[in-house]
Amino acid sequence: MTPALGVCYYPEHWPETVWAADAAAMVQAGLSWVRIGEFAWSRIEPREDNFNWDWLDSAIETLGKAGLKIVLGTPTATPPRWMLTKHPDILACDKNGRPRKFGSRRHYCFSHEGYKLECDRIASKLGERYGKNPHIQSWQIDNEYGCHDTTLSYSQAAEAAFRVWLLEKYKSIEALNTAWGNVFWSMEYGNFEEIDLPNLTVTEANPAHVMDFRRFSSDQVGAFNKVQVDVLRQHTDAPLIHNYMGRITDFDHFAVGQDLDIASWDSYPLGFLEDRSDDGDDWKQRFSRQGDPDFAAFHHDLYRAIGDGRWWVMEQQPGPVNWAPYNPAPLPGMVRLWTWEAIAHGAEVVSYFRWRQAPFAQEQMHAGLQRADYGDSPAMAEVSKVAGEISDLISGDADESPVAIVFDYKSAWAWEIQPQGKDFDYFRLVFDMYRGLRRMGLSVDILPPDTQDFGSRKLVLIPGLMAWTDGLRLAIETFRGKLILGPRTGSKTEDFQIPAHLPPDMNALDVKVTAVESLRPGSAIRLENGGAFHIWREFVEAQSAIIESTTDGHPAVVESGSVQYICGWPDQQSFDRLLKSVAEMAGLTTQHMPGGLRCRDFGDFRLYVNYDNVSLVVDDREIPAANIMLVNRKNNNVLVGQN
Amino acid sequence: MTPALGVCYYPEHWPETVWAADAAAMVQAGLSWVRIGEFAWSRIEPREDNFNWDWLDSAIETLGKAGLKIVLGTPTATPPRWMLTKHPDILACDKNGRPRKFGSRRHYCFSHEGYKLECDRIASKLGERYGKNPHIQSWQIDNEYGCHDTTLSYSQAAEAAFRVWLLEKYKSIEALNTAWGNVFWSMEYGNFEEIDLPNLTVTEANPAHVMDFRRFSSDQVGAFNKVQVDVLRQHTDAPLIHNYMGRITDFDHFAVGQDLDIASWDSYPLGFLEDRSDDGDDWKQRFSRQGDPDFAAFHHDLYRAIGDGRWWVMEQQPGPVNWAPYNPAPLPGMVRLWTWEAIAHGAEVVSYFRWRQAPFAQEQMHAGLQRADYGDSPAMAEVSKVAGEISDLISGDADESPVAIVFDYKSAWAWEIQPQGKDFDYFRLVFDMYRGLRRMGLSVDILPPDTQDFGSRKLVLIPGLMAWTDGLRLAIETFRGKLILGPRTGSKTEDFQIPAHLPPDMNALDVKVTAVESLRPGSAIRLENGGAFHIWREFVEAQSAIIESTTDGHPAVVESGSVQYICGWPDQQSFDRLLKSVAEMAGLTTQHMPGGLRCRDFGDFRLYVNYDNVSLVVDDREIPAANIMLVNRKNNNVLVGQN
Amino acid sequence: MTPALGVCYYPEHWPETVWAADAAAMVQAGLSWVRIGEFAWSRIEPREDNFNWDWLDSAIETLGKAGLKIVLGTPTATPPRWMLTKHPDILACDKNGRPRKFGSRRHYCFSHEGYKLECDRIASKLGERYGKNPHIQSWQIDNEYGCHDTTLSYSQAAEAAFRVWLLEKYKSIEALNTAWGNVFWSMEYGNFEEIDLPNLTVTEANPAHVMDFRRFSSDQVGAFNKVQVDVLRQHTDAPLIHNYMGRITDFDHFAVGQDLDIASWDSYPLGFLEDRSDDGDDWKQRFSRQGDPDFAAFHHDLYRAIGDGRWWVMEQQPGPVNWAPYNPAPLPGMVRLWTWEAIAHGAEVVSYFRWRQAPFAQEQMHAGLQRADYGDSPAMAEVSKVAGEISDLISGDADESPVAIVFDYKSAWAWEIQPQGKDFDYFRLVFDMYRGLRRMGLSVDILPPDTQDFGSRKLVLIPGLMAWTDGLRLAIETFRGKLILGPRTGSKTEDFQIPAHLPPDMNALDVKVTAVESLRPGSAIRLENGGAFHIWREFVEAQSAIIESTTDGHPAVVESGSVQYICGWPDQQSFDRLLKSVAEMAGLTTQHMPGGLRCRDFGDFRLYVNYDNVSLVVDDREIPAANIMLVNRKNNNVLVGQN
Repeated sequence: MTPALGVCYYPEHWPETVWAADAAAMVQAGLSWVRIGEFAWSRIEPREDNFNWDWLDSAIETLGKAGLKIVLGTPTATPPRWMLTKHPDILACDKNGRPRKFGSRRHYCFSHEGYKLECDRIASKLGERYGKNPHIQSWQIDNEYGCHDTTLSYSQAAEAAFRVWLLEKYKSIEALNTAWGNVFWSMEYGNFEEIDLPNLTVTEANPAHVMDFRRFSSDQVGAFNKVQVDVLRQHTDAPLIHNYMGRITDFDHFAVGQDLDIASWDSYPLGFLEDRSDDGDDWKQRFSRQGDPDFAAFHHDLYRAIGDGRWWVMEQQPGPVNWAPYNPAPLPGMVRLWTWEAIAHGAEVVSYFRWRQAPFAQEQMHAGLQRADYGDSPAMAEVSKVAGEISDLISGDADESPVAIVFDYKSAWAWEIQPQGKDFDYFRLVFDMYRGLRRMGLSVDILPPDTQDFGSRKLVLIPGLMAWTDGLRLAIETFRGKLILGPRTGSKTEDFQIPAHLPPDMNALDVKVTAVESLRPGSAIRLENGGAFHIWREFVEAQSAIIESTTDGHPAVVESGSVQYICGWPDQQSFDRLLKSVAEMAGLTTQHMPGGLRCRDFGDFRLYVNYDNVSLVVDDREIPAANIMLVNRKNNNVLVGQN
Repeated sequence: MTPALGVCYYPEHWPETVWAADAAAMVQAGLSWVRIGEFAWSRIEPREDNFNWDWLDSAIETLGKAGLKIVLGTPTATPPRWMLTKHPDILACDKNGRPRKFGSRRHYCFSHEGYKLECDRIASKLGERYGKNPHIQSWQIDNEYGCHDTTLSYSQAAEAAFRVWLLEKYKSIEALNTAWGNVFWSMEYGNFEEIDLPNLTVTEANPAHVMDFRRFSSDQVGAFNKVQVDVLRQHTDAPLIHNYMGRITDFDHFAVGQDLDIASWDSYPLGFLEDRSDDGDDWKQRFSRQGDPDFAAFHHDLYRAIGDGRWWVMEQQPGPVNWAPYNPAPLPGMVRLWTWEAIAHGAEVVSYFRWRQAPFAQEQMHAGLQRADYGDSPAMAEVSKVAGEISDLISGDADESPVAIVFDYKSAWAWEIQPQGKDFDYFRLVFDMYRGLRRMGLSVDILPPDTQDFGSRKLVLIPGLMAWTDGLRLAIETFRGKLILGPRTGSKTEDFQIPAHLPPDMNALDVKVTAVESLRPGSAIRLENGGAFHIWREFVEAQSAIIESTTDGHPAVVESGSVQYICGWPDQQSFDRLLKSVAEMAGLTTQHMPGGLRCRDFGDFRLYVNYDNVSLVVDDREIPAANIMLVNRKNNNVLVGQN
Repeated sequence: MTPALGVCYYPEHWPETVWAADAAAMVQAGLSWVRIGEFAWSRIEPREDNFNWDWLDSAIETLGKAGLKIVLGTPTATPPRWMLTKHPDILACDKNGRPRKFGSRRHYCFSHEGYKLECDRIASKLGERYGKNPHIQSWQIDNEYGCHDTTLSYSQAAEAAFRVWLLEKYKSIEALNTAWGNVFWSMEYGNFEEIDLPNLTVTEANPAHVMDFRRFSSDQVGAFNKVQVDVLRQHTDAPLIHNYMGRITDFDHFAVGQDLDIASWDSYPLGFLEDRSDDGDDWKQRFSRQGDPDFAAFHHDLYRAIGDGRWWVMEQQPGPVNWAPYNPAPLPGMVRLWTWEAIAHGAEVVSYFRWRQAPFAQEQMHAGLQRADYGDSPAMAEVSKVAGEISDLISGDADESPVAIVFDYKSAWAWEIQPQGKDFDYFRLVFDMYRGLRRMGLSVDILPPDTQDFGSRKLVLIPGLMAWTDGLRLAIETFRGKLILGPRTGSKTEDFQIPAHLPPDMNALDVKVTAVESLRPGSAIRLENGGAFHIWREFVEAQSAIIESTTDGHPAVVESGSVQYICGWPDQQSFDRLLKSVAEMAGLTTQHMPGGLRCRDFGDFRLYVNYDNVSLVVDDREIPAANIMLVNRKNNNVLVGQN
């Protein structure tokens, strides 16, 4: 399959007279896909049951005729104002119980049944009208679920739905009381109607209570999405897509992804560096115009897993954005580099957001490929360049990478609920290890927590997993590669209790975690062979071999057969050392990546990307800052080089 | 006119038996004005329509007979408790929608029509009784509008009034939808009743929506003030005053000032340094007992503009206050220095707050000229000294300064709504440039944004102006001096949209701002000739001459004729350099002010003030810390020297 | 009396089949007390008036028969869920007016009269059933009053009760208006029904208003506690206890303690270091596994005073806890050290929390003496060891220490209401001085603010006392030792006003505080002989002798006879110097304690405790990190040494 480029376009923002010229310019720039419609409800249905299709018919016709394939979005992320008059209780409520008002977007509660019917209705109308339209080659449902902290709602609708969800799960209130351990602090309930949402409690709520609320909230996203999936399937055979975000873990994307055909995400490397990175000011300053060298890559791998191999970048940052604490311009070359990175991870389409900067409303300071005065922004030339470079590229189906990490949304909720130390964060733990693998030149797959088979992979990591699944237990039994577990893996039952025989609760290892501790900055526990544990350390009783100890005399890494357990959160130095050793045992070829250099193997290719703001050298070849080098993996010949 | 000194006095706080002695002591100290009454509603009207005038008659008589001129305040900043029983919905609401309760002050919503009638009533009563009283030589309306974040209210009264305000502005809902760009995110309204106040939205509200709410809120302050102006004008010919605060930009003071005769403000140099300064800990520590060397001066110049030349300091800090994060005592000499600084800027009256420290209630730790035990505080001697020093001084009408900066409240709202980088702040930008002018020994005027004529000034600066006014376009056309614009000047239309042909949208310059970026600390952009842009940088296409470039190759300063545009936020080093060059071209004489030394020219005088905590030397003369030197501008002779 | 050890146990959390074995293991470990029942309401009364006593009868019988003495807790800290159905308004409200919901603990408002009747009822039931049970040797009422910020409630129940409380205190609204100084800002009330709770005011409420609300809130805790005291006294002669917390000053513990027989507290040295220490990161890192060297000791001394000599540690941390920002494991030896420290301060019982780590609910990550898998945690061996070491120890009644500090809860409220500088905190001031005394090897008593006689003590300190009591004035008159007052002592009247003749308002000194200032970090005022005042400094007029001055020429310490007044907040260097000098004059023998070493004299013993993470030497004997040395005070022989 040849990767393709696209763009997000809002015909309703511009005079109809410029649509044809815009479409022609898109094609001219090398774009073949255009996404439209996802916020246009007030133009499609200005008043209830009063539809205005003309403009959308015309826009689709104009774009399609120019040769563009269209992704049509359902506009359910932005119910128009009249919807609130009809359903005044549609709004989600924040943790303080306040309604989150109309006036921006995503102002609905996933649990509102009336709004689901409205979404069914508008999706039906769109499906009926455009389901067979040949220009509509894909559909996007809603937009960025969970963005602006919208997964969790503390509304009355959510409360009522949560009680039903609990009844269905536990059947009897006695079963719930036992599962949650409600004997503690006299928290026992007499019936399901007595159960509140777990906000505004005097001190922390029962973690099992919160965990079920998180599971419920995630399920509500899936149920909401499923309504439109079911409607659209009746009208179209085109693939269904949702565009996820970066580092949003509030709902189980694997679950939502199972109902869709393609996963996509919105990649804003500079915004995410400022807004969603755990790294310090030095790191942010160094990569402020390039983005974190591993953040986009991680999500590319994650969404490839969520899309079961099929994935896009639906929105790719093309210049300064408007929403991060600081919004610098990217270094020249970065738009091309980001595009190449996505393609190397198997993206079918990379679509830029947006065609032209809007002069009004919330995102008026968000750059596009064109400026508000219709001139080109600097990104336009880079897009054209990369369009040419990839035009002959045939990337195969996503290869299986030799290394994999298991990523589990439920574990993110678990450790958010119970960090047991204020620096513990599940995403950060997984991402730290992912970055370590990238530093060693390895390409990585992300696996869901119900994986039953690790395939022919040579190394699998399972850090911080809250609770084992039957699938994973099975996968481990049959796995022939090396396995790295911990810290905190297997430390809870599904009911958010400590396992009867203590963590990690895994037959493959004869290890028992007897106590844990969280560490303040500056209190790292040094390891005998260098480096340290920071943030987190576990005390274990082990019959398994002790591979390495801490300098205060406790096991740091223990091993049984091909399974290692890491008894803490390794810092960069210690993790690199541990990983290098395991990788060698696993028969993996590693290559140290200096500074912000990274690589990714796909098909016959290896792509080198230099995220740094200085030139870096690999295999005696210099790669300038913000540049790439594509080589043939077999002969190491350079196929695409400096910008 | 000879400048005069005054004091704020609360006869209702003290036994009537001490009033005469207090009055005599005031006169003895050199004071000629006394302000009374502005919080005394519960004593004037203890119950509705039940007036108690005796004490106030007596106080006025006692003070007046002692030879003091009286400023009588209307007590509308503190409606008594019975007012809430009558109007339970009088309270403003905070951003979370919670009523801001009785129990301190300023507990009313500017949009409450019933309360405006009450203010009309009490002002009428006061006007009727004292409008012709010869001792009442001035009136203060209300007290410190906007203090304690009271300009913005999210009450039902405000919501209703906002909808009416919008209807009057836009006439049709279609016009509003277009102006705001509500097609974005399906935010279109069907009628004005659907429009909420822009709080508690899921993510940021439409900036145009917020901007109109800010304009509305500012207008409500003006309308509230106008009620009492109109009433008092019927009863008195004495000048009407309001006492504004420091660094409050929530309402348009120019608009309010147009209805009044004199502007005054409450100057608390030490409190403001701790509470309202952008400078870091080193700066705050260095000036903790003196106050920022430019903050009071800036406001003196600002309120001189707002009063159209007539202005007072209504409340001058005399010792430690009670409300800042840290409340140190001023260095000996500072009360005198602050008084001199105000007089050099043209103050008609400097009035100290307060006569005697109250032993009770919220401000019991706020110093006065007397202590709570009726002894003198250290300020008393300084006041007497400065009273003697200024007794022969004849200061003319406010001179026009050779340099001016345009200050625009609407721009403050605009960049608060859309900072596009968390360090961008309009006041800070203007103040940075003002400080640069002071560092160069220049005296400065502040100009309102609708100025139509820059007069004979040699240099005018217009930084960060959101949108051009017709007046300013005209002023620029006819101006013969040097003009410095930017950054961000002219970057929006009145509707908060990007101008069609991009900023700065000014014929006098052939420059187009194609993109902007906000910069994190440590990411400054260096300029070729030294110094840097921090916080903010713009990319421009310019036919105008490029005066200076950044070291990464972009224009930094461009020039057309006598107009320069600065493409970023200059740091101190670069701004000093740029300014010195322009000042020379403009024919201005500059004098570098070392450390905390500053000067101000007025009439035939130049006043040097040393805010530093060490002696500084100017023209071979040493000025001790916290001291002043008044010289004759013509012959440089010292008229008033060391304390 | 021989000190004893105990443990907290929750039979309702474990199968009845293990109770007997648990009891036997407790006895085996050297424990003689066990606390049960304090959160078990939902098991005792699962539905209203539907009691289930069997399990509790059986648990008491099993534990008692094993030889354990039982503390039986009343479960009123955790009203079960059905109580909310019966009394929906039982919940306290937070400062924003939001109900604090069911789902954790302490979800009741102290002012709810209906809930007090429920507490009367359940306490009566327990008293009737177990009041004469020989195994029940003590009762604990409720649990950790004030924990989770529960003293202050802004509910309607609190508002109604506050108005009644004010009416009873002031009798007439005029008296209240005068006492509060409500003439200020027109805050005068017409009747008691007009008075709100002092939250959500526009700016700060009247400090006198807040102070009365704090007094009221404290009284409500006492009244709530008294209900159960009165009930239980009818049924039992066993002593009544409450378990207080660390650094909770929201209610007057002396007042509550007067109704009880024994004071106890819950000592979590590592949690409190992270959560409730004013010290910086370096200090927290150094003592992260040992706890602050003075925090537990201070509270031991405080609760000895509150229990009038009789006190326990009801909950002693045995390993990592779950609730601090960071939760490290204690150094080996610390559980023994903490136990010894408590015993040296006169603890009758030290009881560990808890017997076994629970695998479920909020505290599942809180260590116990046993792990969740029934294995021993590291603390178990230390407990057994210390049980053996203390088995022969006869500690006499609490000796009077030669040094005392007055501690006053009302002063904590006063300076929380009016810090006048953001670093001023009453607890911190007292604790700073307490730490200074400990650094000098002195043993200290805490005295309540109504102490009428200082006994034969040689040195008494009264820092930061808001207002004098008649008792203290009397005690000072008759005292023959040295007295250190200030800063801020005597600076308010009972009505929260400045005394008419200024602070410190004390005949024993001819000093008048004319002004105060709060100091930002880095602005310390140096003293002539070394060290400095930080945070706070006072300017005084003194006829008393000036013992020392500041380098800027103001009195720093003044003295009249045997009374010294400190005109600021001394840093460690200056306080050590001042204290050493006074201690010598007072005839006290001091011994400098290096680093984290401390000592405590009791009976014939001196206990040295090394809180540091390195060995320290005292009298040529080395005490390893986290270890103790017990010596005979007469001959200095070592009685108990290294672990």
